[in-house]
Amino acid sequence: MTEIDRRKAILLALSAPLAPYAIGAAGEQTKEPQHKMPNTGSVHWMGDEQIAMLMYPGMTVMDLMGPHCFLGALMGAKVFLVAKSLDPVTSDTGVTITPTATFKTCPSDLTVLFTPGGTDGTLAAAVDPETRAFMADRGARAKYVTSVCSGSLILGAAGLLKGYKATSHWSVRHVLAGFGAIPTDARVVRDRNRITGAGVTAGLDFGLTMVAELRDRIYAECCQLMSEYDPHPPFNSGSMKTAPPEVKTPMIEMLTEFVKKAETLAAAKRG
Amino acid sequence: MTEIDRRKAILLALSAPLAPYAIGAAGEQTKEPQHKMPNTGSVHWMGDEQIAMLMYPGMTVMDLMGPHCFLGALMGAKVFLVAKSLDPVTSDTGVTITPTATFKTCPSDLTVLFTPGGTDGTLAAAVDPETRAFMADRGARAKYVTSVCSGSLILGAAGLLKGYKATSHWSVRHVLAGFGAIPTDARVVRDRNRITGAGVTAGLDFGLTMVAELRDRIYAECCQLMSEYDPHPPFNSGSMKTAPPEVKTPMIEMLTEFVKKAETLAAAKRG
Repeated sequence: MTEIDRRKAILLALSAPLAPYAIGAAGEQTKEPQHKMPNTGSVHWMGDEQIAMLMYPGMTVMDLMGPHCFLGALMGAKVFLVAKSLDPVTSDTGVTITPTATFKTCPSDLTVLFTPGGTDGTLAAAVDPETRAFMADRGARAKYVTSVCSGSLILGAAGLLKGYKATSHWSVRHVLAGFGAIPTDARVVRDRNRITGAGVTAGLDFGLTMVAELRDRIYAECCQLMSEYDPHPPFNSGSMKTAPPEVKTPMIEMLTEFVKKAETLAAAKRG
Repeated sequence: MTEIDRRKAILLALSAPLAPYAIGAAGEQTKEPQHKMPNTGSVHWMGDEQIAMLMYPGMTVMDLMGPHCFLGALMGAKVFLVAKSLDPVTSDTGVTITPTATFKTCPSDLTVLFTPGGTDGTLAAAVDPETRAFMADRGARAKYVTSVCSGSLILGAAGLLKGYKATSHWSVRHVLAGFGAIPTDARVVRDRNRITGAGVTAGLDFGLTMVAELRDRIYAECCQLMSEYDPHPPFNSGSMKTAPPEVKTPMIEMLTEFVKKAETLAAAKRG
């Protein structure tokens, strides 16, 4: 199924009870359906969001693809994978993805500005003048300014988190204070139009939260069922609150150098 | 951090108590550490797995990236993103990824053969002679034959699930019977060396299960903490057992055509 076919299929299915409003004879959308569904309030099945997802070398690909799993299911929305150029971008584990827009071609007024995290690649992006200028510019007007994992360091370095509650990967959440943010320990943190997710896989919870915010709860629940997001982790070590010491200790050690570098970045920004 | 740097960092951190065994003066691995850790049994921090992850046009990118999130963290393993050619492959939501190996250059003897799912692209891959021949050939010798979501239809079409319990996306799990498999309703299903995951996001639970299988539980728990896999879905509609009717009905309708095509494929295979 092409993306257009898929979106038409979703639209046809979701809007079946609403056909007179939503679908023309040829299956084309004739006007935006906006109506009352029983028990679900005001529903917008079709939207026109402009969503920009930043990409940079060394990004953690799951930080990007978790949210994309749900944001990519928004009918009518345009999702741009944005980088400095259209050259393919390689993640920290060697996954190479082709951007669909550049800092220049990305729409100026965005519904959602998003950035994934990573380790050294994230710190490099956070201090890169072009990347910072792009984030600051689009972030100044975007309806929602968002991140997952250490992507919030990029938001912070671009001056987008001053006075906002925000979260990050557990290892660098405290670093956000250096950017004037209020580090907050939760899976997804919302403060006005800033919505940030915790580490890596929190992008799924973030993505579903965004879909409900941009559309409505039923739409988000449909996406949840389609992606069978009914997690059953085989172990219970996904949080610093639950992992045993023999897991926490080596992971803290492993990230020591990265955390120091992030602290230095925040101190330089503050200084 | 490059991938090699990251792996060295993980190795250095994880193996700190075991330095005489694992690390040479220059930080290079000098022999495979294999030893007894208190309370954790026999631990292999370094491995040499050869993991092939199939890519094809129209794949669901989260089916691939969920497992990759954890399989990509196996120190010493080689993870190949395999397609017909090295031309970039575009997913069902327009994400374009560059393969790292072809059917010809992919190692002949694999530790793990994996395929993601999707909808029409998956059915096309399942009947494609080259793809089927590749999967049947590598699957005949791979230590583990695996999938997530409707990727199990590709395994089935390649004759790799006859007599095995297996799962799939909820919409097409029953179709597996047409390939001689035993459809089984669980997040991750193991039958001998066949390990299959349910729909899309089940790839995370599948990936962690594989890491524990290939290495050990502590290693998997370290990966879980690093990826902060402590899911908190904001809604409870990720399963056909929990989603309300107003969510289930449109999603079943949306997938009707795909399910029919999958049933036709399985019937043709059986006939």
